Amino acid sequence: MADISTTTLKAEVDRLHLEIQALQSKTGSERITVGKYLLERLAQMGVTHIFGLPGDFNLTFLDLIEDHPKIQWVGNCNELNSSYAADGYARVKSNSLGVILTTFGVGELSAINGIAGAFSEMVPVLHIVGVPTTKEHKTRPLLHHTLGDGRYNAYREASAPFVILEENLMNRNTAATQIDNAISECITKARPVYMTLPTDMVYQEISTERLKTPLSHSLPLNDPQMEEYVIDSIFERVQEAEGDVVVLADACVIRHGVRKEVAEFLRETGFPVYATPMGKTAIDESWHRYGGIYVGSLTHPSIKDKVENAKLMISIGLLSTDFNTGNFSYNIPTRRLIELHSSWTKIQYGLYEGIGMKQLLPKLTERLQHFYPVAHKIPVPKFQALVPQEQTHMISHAWFWPRLASFFQPGDVIVTETGTSNFGILDIPLPTGCRLISQVLWGSIGWSVGSALGAALAARERGMNRVILFVGDGSLQLTVQELSPMIKNGLRPIIFVLNNKGYTIERCIHGKNRKYNDISNWDWPALLDVFNDSGKFETGSHVARNKDDISMLLDDKSFNHADKIKIVEVQMGAFDAPKSLERQAAMTGASHRAVAAVN
Amino acid sequence: MADISTTTLKAEVDRLHLEIQALQSKTGSERITVGKYLLERLAQMGVTHIFGLPGDFNLTFLDLIEDHPKIQWVGNCNELNSSYAADGYARVKSNSLGVILTTFGVGELSAINGIAGAFSEMVPVLHIVGVPTTKEHKTRPLLHHTLGDGRYNAYREASAPFVILEENLMNRNTAATQIDNAISECITKARPVYMTLPTDMVYQEISTERLKTPLSHSLPLNDPQMEEYVIDSIFERVQEAEGDVVVLADACVIRHGVRKEVAEFLRETGFPVYATPMGKTAIDESWHRYGGIYVGSLTHPSIKDKVENAKLMISIGLLSTDFNTGNFSYNIPTRRLIELHSSWTKIQYGLYEGIGMKQLLPKLTERLQHFYPVAHKIPVPKFQALVPQEQTHMISHAWFWPRLASFFQPGDVIVTETGTSNFGILDIPLPTGCRLISQVLWGSIGWSVGSALGAALAARERGMNRVILFVGDGSLQLTVQELSPMIKNGLRPIIFVLNNKGYTIERCIHGKNRKYNDISNWDWPALLDVFNDSGKFETGSHVARNKDDISMLLDDKSFNHADKIKIVEVQMGAFDAPKSLERQAAMTGASHRAVAAVN
Repeated sequence: MADISTTTLKAEVDRLHLEIQALQSKTGSERITVGKYLLERLAQMGVTHIFGLPGDFNLTFLDLIEDHPKIQWVGNCNELNSSYAADGYARVKSNSLGVILTTFGVGELSAINGIAGAFSEMVPVLHIVGVPTTKEHKTRPLLHHTLGDGRYNAYREASAPFVILEENLMNRNTAATQIDNAISECITKARPVYMTLPTDMVYQEISTERLKTPLSHSLPLNDPQMEEYVIDSIFERVQEAEGDVVVLADACVIRHGVRKEVAEFLRETGFPVYATPMGKTAIDESWHRYGGIYVGSLTHPSIKDKVENAKLMISIGLLSTDFNTGNFSYNIPTRRLIELHSSWTKIQYGLYEGIGMKQLLPKLTERLQHFYPVAHKIPVPKFQALVPQEQTHMISHAWFWPRLASFFQPGDVIVTETGTSNFGILDIPLPTGCRLISQVLWGSIGWSVGSALGAALAARERGMNRVILFVGDGSLQLTVQELSPMIKNGLRPIIFVLNNKGYTIERCIHGKNRKYNDISNWDWPALLDVFNDSGKFETGSHVARNKDDISMLLDDKSFNHADKIKIVEVQMGAFDAPKSLERQAAMTGASHRAVAAVN
Repeated sequence: MADISTTTLKAEVDRLHLEIQALQSKTGSERITVGKYLLERLAQMGVTHIFGLPGDFNLTFLDLIEDHPKIQWVGNCNELNSSYAADGYARVKSNSLGVILTTFGVGELSAINGIAGAFSEMVPVLHIVGVPTTKEHKTRPLLHHTLGDGRYNAYREASAPFVILEENLMNRNTAATQIDNAISECITKARPVYMTLPTDMVYQEISTERLKTPLSHSLPLNDPQMEEYVIDSIFERVQEAEGDVVVLADACVIRHGVRKEVAEFLRETGFPVYATPMGKTAIDESWHRYGGIYVGSLTHPSIKDKVENAKLMISIGLLSTDFNTGNFSYNIPTRRLIELHSSWTKIQYGLYEGIGMKQLLPKLTERLQHFYPVAHKIPVPKFQALVPQEQTHMISHAWFWPRLASFFQPGDVIVTETGTSNFGILDIPLPTGCRLISQVLWGSIGWSVGSALGAALAARERGMNRVILFVGDGSLQLTVQELSPMIKNGLRPIIFVLNNKGYTIERCIHGKNRKYNDISNWDWPALLDVFNDSGKFETGSHVARNKDDISMLLDDKSFNHADKIKIVEVQMGAFDAPKSLERQAAMTGASHRAVAAVN
C-alpha cells in the first residue's frame, strides 16, 4: 500500500513545484515554442498519436506534429470520426489521454458530438482547435469559417457545455501554465478539455523550465480524518451484515483507473463481485468470484437473487443510467448500499464529499480483509456461455453471442456498437485481460468505428492482442470512411458487420415495419478494397449467411490470426435481437409514448 | 410593380389575422395533433422532403412523416450529411425552407456544423429535434443520450449561437403559435431555427383554426417616407455620376430572393452588372450586360478596371468576406458606393435601417430607368471561357474549367466544393437559368456531397435540368456515404471527383509537400456499386486520366444525358490549382503565419 501513498505524495510535490514556477520569473535560459511545449507535455503523458484533419488554421502546428519524434499524426476522414478515435484511444490507453486537432468552426463543430460523448462517458480527450491569430481575435475580420458577423467566440460557447475546462492560448506568458492545467485536469477528471491555439501562438517562444517537472496524474489526497471515519463506518456496516456483501463494479472503475485497486480489494476480501453493462471487463471475467452482469430487472434470475439478497452492496464507480440499470430497476434499498466514487463516498444516506476511491480502496482492503473467512464462502453462480440448440440455419442473436465465446482470446480488445451488439456481448464471459469498449450511456451510433481505430492504435502500442469490432449495418453507414485510415495505418481489426437490413434497435423500440428504419443494402465485403490505398494493403472479406458459415470461420485458425484487416458480413434477421435489448426497448418505447397530462 | 405591393399587403393582413387568432379563444371545433399541425404548415410552405435519421426520441413523429401524403422522408446516412442536404434543398427550392429531423443529443450535435453553415451562408433550415417527454424535462432522469448529470438544456445551449430562434414545444397551448413563428422567421430571415419536439407532444391535440390562414413569406413594409428619401438620394448620386454606374450582385440577391427584382432593375436601367463569387448565377450569366466575376485584387484586369473606375457602384446583397472579396482588396471608396441589403440600405456613409431591397428595388427601377439611354452604352467586357492550348496530356485546372463551359446546359444545377472547384468555376460563364451552389464563406469541406443530394431532390421537383457536382477526393472522403441515399432516391447527378491525391487547397496555403495533406487513394469508380442498394439501380463510372479521356466523355451524347447517377474520376496533379486559388491561398497563408507582437 505504501507505493500508492508515495506516488500520491510525489505528485503533490510536483504540483506545488509547478505552482511556484508559475509565480516566479518566466524567463528561463532555454526557449521553446508554445507548439513544441504542448507536444512535449503530451509526449510526457504517453500520447503517441494525435487524431484530426488539417485545416488552414492548424497547418503550422501540424508541421510540428509531423516532425515530432514521439508523436504520430493520424489523419482521419472527418472530424466526428477523429473525436471517436481519440475517445477509443484514451479508453484503451488508460492513465493518458486522447488528443484531437481540428480547425476553427467547420472542423471543431463536426467533432462536438464526439466530445459530448467523451464528457458523458467520462473519457479524457483534449480537443485542440487551430484558430485565427490573436490579432484577428481582436479585429474580427469576416474570414471564411466565420458566421459572417464577427462572433469569434461562438464556437467556444457551443463547446462549453461538453468540457470541464476551456483554455484559450492568447498570451504566451500564461501559455505553459494553461497547457499544464488543461492536460492535468483532462486526465485526473477523465473528461474532455477544450483548447484554442491561434496560428501565431504556435511559434511564440517561452521558457522550457516547467517541462522539467512532470505533470501530476493523481487526485488530491483525501482528508485523513474524514477518510478514517468513512473506513470505520464501512467496517461497521459490513460487520452488521456479517460479511454478506456483494461488490458491483461499474463504469468509473475503468474511467477513473482503479482496476488494480479493485482487483486487490476483491482478492483480499473474497467478496463476490458482479458488473454492470458499463462496468463489463472492469473485473477480469475469469476471476472465480465474478458472477456476471447485473442490470436490474433485466438480469438473469440466478444472478438477480444473489445480488439483491445480499445484506450489503458495495458499488464501485456506479453510474445509474437507464440502459445501465435495466431502466432504473435496481431493487437495492439505500440502507443496504455503499457507493464508492472518484471524488466522493456514500454510506447509506450519508454523503462524504472529497473521499475518492483511488486512495480509499487500498485502506479499505486492509480493513475488510478481516471478513475473508466468511466472505469467500458466499456462493457465486458460474458465469458461462451456453450455445443453445436451434433448428434453423439462420444466425440468431441467441445463438451467435454464446457461439463467439470460444473465439475470444486473452487480451483481446472488443469494441461493440450501440444496438444489438452492446446487449449481445453482455451474455458471454470474456477471457482474462480482455477489454470491452462500448458507449452505453451516450449511445451515438457509428461511434464504434472511429473508436476501434483509436483503440487499435493504442492496443498495438500497449502490446495487446486482437481488436474485434461488432457493428450493425445501420451504424457502420454513419462512419464507414474510417475503415480507410485503419487500412492506411496497417491496423488489423476483425470487423463483424451484423447485417440486419436497418436500424434493428429502433425497430425494437418503435416502428417495427416502418420504412424509416430501412437502409440501403451495401456490398459490405467490397468495402475494404474500395478504401484500400491503391491496393497497397492486404485485406480479407467474408460473408456468413448461416450458422455453418460463421462456425467454420470462427474455427478456422488462419481467420483467428489477426494478420490483416478483415470484414465479416454476418447476415441476420431484421427483427431478431438479444432478449435483453428487446426488454429494454419495450420499456424505452413505452416511456416515449406516455402522454403526460401537463398542459 | 403593383403586384409586389399587393403581395406584401396581403401578407401583412395574414400576419395580423394570426396575431388576432393567438389572442382569441384556442378551442376551434376541429382538432389536429401537434405533429400533424407542424407537417401541415411545412407542406403549405412547399416542403416536400424532410432529411435526417431515426432516433428513439423522434420515432413517433416519423410515423406521421411516413404517412403524410405530401411530404417524403429522406433517410440520410448521418446527421451532418442531412444538415447539408437540407441546406442544398433550401438553396435550390427558394421561397421555402429545408427541414432536418434529428434525435436528442447524439443526433442534433452531429448536425451542428451544418446548421452553423446555414447560419453563416444565410440559408433557411429548420432543425427539429425529437427530445424526451415534457415530464422527463422536469424530472431529468439519466437517460441514454444525456450527459449523465441531468443537464437537459445543454444541447439547446450549444445550438443557440447558430440559430436566430429557438422554439421548445413544451406546452400544447402555445405550440401552434411557436410552430408558425419558427417557420415564418426561418424563411423571412433566411437563417436556421431550432425546434425541440418532445415525444409526448407529437400526439397532443390542438385546434386546426390557424391552419386556415397562410403564413407570411415576406418582410414588413419599408417606412414610406424614409424609402422615398432613400430613392431620391440614390437618384441624386446616380445623376452626379452621370449614369456611370456598375451594379455588383452578391450572395444576398440569392439568399433573400430578389433575383427577379434585380433582373428587372438591370433590364430597365441598362446598367452593366458584375457578380462576386458568392453572387455567381444571381444574375443570368447569359445576360448581355453581365461582365463576369469581381473579386478585388484577384479579378482579371479587364474586369477590374471597369468595375473600379465606374463613378458609382450599386452593390446588391453585399457580403464582404475574405474569399468573396479577394482578401478584402476591393478598391472602391465609400463615397462611390451604394449598398442595398435585405433590411437596410447604405448610401455612401449614411445608413438607413429598415429599408429592405425587396420592396425598394421595384421603386428604384422605376426611378432609375431614366438613365437607360446613357447607361446601356457603357461597354461591358464579354464574359467567355477560352480553352488554352497546352502541350501536356495531363488535365490541368487552367484547361479543365474552360473546357467544361460547353458541357453545361441551360437550367443545370451546379454544386461546387470548397477547394479547387469553388475557384475554378468562377472563370467560366454558365448558361441561362443555371444555378451555382457553393459555400464560399463557411467552407466546410464535404458539404457539397450532402448538399447535392438535397439540391437534386429540389431540382427534380422544380423540373430543373441536370445536377452536376464537382468535389475533390479529400472532401468526398468526409461525406462519401451520402452517395447511397442519392442512389436510393433514384437521383441522377453527374459527379466529377477531382482526384489530386490530397487536400490541394491546404497544400496551396501551407505544407505543400507535407504528409498531413496526403490521403488514401480510393477506388473511386467502384464507389457507386458498393453503395447501390443490392444493385437495384443503374449507375455509371468513368476514369479520365488525361485531356483526351475527359474531352471524349464531355462530347459524348449519352454521357451528357442525365439518365443515371454517374461518377467521373478526373485525375489531376497534386499541386495544380486554379490561379485565383493560388493567389488567395498565398494571402491566407501569409496572414496565418504573421506573428503578432501582442504579448
